[in-house]
Amino acid sequence: MAVQLDLDAILAFTISLAKEAGKIIRDGQQKRFETEASQDEKLNSVDLVTEVDKAVEAFITDKITKQYPDHQFIGEETYTGQKITDEPTWIASNPIDGTTNFVHGYPMCCTSIGLAVGGVPLIGVIYNPFLDQLYSAAKGRGAYLNETTRLPLTGKPKPLESLGQSLIGVEYGSSRSAPQLPAKVKAFEKLAAHTKDGGKMVHSLRSAGTAAINIALVATGVWTCTGRSAAGHGMSAGFCILTEAGGVAFGGKTSSLSGDIDAGLMAGRKYLAVRAIAPGEGETALQTQQRFARELYDITDDYDP
Amino acid sequence: MAVQLDLDAILAFTISLAKEAGKIIRDGQQKRFETEASQDEKLNSVDLVTEVDKAVEAFITDKITKQYPDHQFIGEETYTGQKITDEPTWIASNPIDGTTNFVHGYPMCCTSIGLAVGGVPLIGVIYNPFLDQLYSAAKGRGAYLNETTRLPLTGKPKPLESLGQSLIGVEYGSSRSAPQLPAKVKAFEKLAAHTKDGGKMVHSLRSAGTAAINIALVATGVWTCTGRSAAGHGMSAGFCILTEAGGVAFGGKTSSLSGDIDAGLMAGRKYLAVRAIAPGEGETALQTQQRFARELYDITDDYDP
Repeated sequence: MAVQLDLDAILAFTISLAKEAGKIIRDGQQKRFETEASQDEKLNSVDLVTEVDKAVEAFITDKITKQYPDHQFIGEETYTGQKITDEPTWIASNPIDGTTNFVHGYPMCCTSIGLAVGGVPLIGVIYNPFLDQLYSAAKGRGAYLNETTRLPLTGKPKPLESLGQSLIGVEYGSSRSAPQLPAKVKAFEKLAAHTKDGGKMVHSLRSAGTAAINIALVATGVWTCTGRSAAGHGMSAGFCILTEAGGVAFGGKTSSLSGDIDAGLMAGRKYLAVRAIAPGEGETALQTQQRFARELYDITDDYDP
Repeated sequence: MAVQLDLDAILAFTISLAKEAGKIIRDGQQKRFETEASQDEKLNSVDLVTEVDKAVEAFITDKITKQYPDHQFIGEETYTGQKITDEPTWIASNPIDGTTNFVHGYPMCCTSIGLAVGGVPLIGVIYNPFLDQLYSAAKGRGAYLNETTRLPLTGKPKPLESLGQSLIGVEYGSSRSAPQLPAKVKAFEKLAAHTKDGGKMVHSLRSAGTAAINIALVATGVWTCTGRSAAGHGMSAGFCILTEAGGVAFGGKTSSLSGDIDAGLMAGRKYLAVRAIAPGEGETALQTQQRFARELYDITDDYDP
């Protein structure tokens, strides 16, 4: 990279920024509830969400461009399919991640801010202002919950005896037509089903409704895996936290399963995040993670739990 | 009832009890994590969970029997199918609700303590010690989050234009064989699917993994509905909070849909909880809730979202 980046200083800046952005999100919801309570006519929830979403993005954009005027910036509004360059590039394309939850008041909702150079995420901060949970990482410095608890939460990677021991984050998403939805639901069923019915009988499936928090939950070690068909660059912060916690992200069934968070994954449309796993017998940790990823990819080509 | 109960005093006692029980649960998880981090061999998670579960139940039982020696008590261990009598009866049959989450560290986990007389829940407290969220109600006194925020969160019931505007809590549960699981997953698909594919296209489905918190989330107004095939008496606390927040629970497709939380529902194996809804045109609130319940029951006989 052209410039030497002070990652410690940038991380501190980003954490502070995410917390301030979180306050705007929280206040925005409070205002929404008050508006709902005072209105008799039909609400226009969409407008209110858009208003908060835009306010948060404007706030983040303004702070970053003032602090780091030479850096590139990809926001939700400013994203036009551009690739992340070799210049330091901020990614805040999900000012509010978990919008449906925000609308309904389900406290699984966050802002996600990342800094990457080329394909490599260097800083990642995900903040849920409703639960006051902050996930953060800087490359080479580890990942943390609320700045003090190192991830994974269990201190070191847990083993994974079989996929049956998994808690898996899945989402219904917005593609609700055939063939996408039936294929996805079929995969959920296969994961849940008893082994005598040809299933994996995982511990269970959970749906939180936010891709960024899903990745953070895999980083904590709470969830075994999660995946999505979504713009990879938006997951930059999550990828940074995940890999610093010993987890790994793969780019789809036909990808190399290298575990590298690179320009390809960042520009891609699919990922499968797998938690840190204690290496199996005669395997490296990555080989163990790859083995479970292959088992998951066998369930569906279009893996979108 | 034979004795006059001081509900304010009992509620204060129950809240304090739930918070103390929550501390045991939280400390138990911390110990689990430390044990996992220090062990190299395969963990016996089940034993550790059982240990915490038993400790919580013993604590709750002891406190209640000392404070109210004349009352009846139904715990997880002491439940043998007995009905709730006309004597004041405490129900703490879920000392840890969301056990799978507890095992994995997903912070959707609670203790649930209720007091009922006959079929009528009088006191309900649900406490999530990981998020420090306490849901409580006493009959006739309203329902609250953290003792100060009255439920539903929006201050008064929101309208529900159509089922498509819903956020619905569903669970995969423990029945993972055919025909139960395929029927359940088919219902999830129908709820999620686009209307042009014959679906309801709900906003989305969420799985939190705890029946008690699911009901509390319906009471807050965040989720539109949730349901389950489970022993109704264990949901006593949730039913109290739900109804005090303007929500309603029905006892299954073939039930009267009266909305009464009575001995039948409490002894039953099915319920569908529906949030407070502003009455539709020419309808009472209950009629509106019944209308959406019928629409849900049309999707599946064995309604177990």
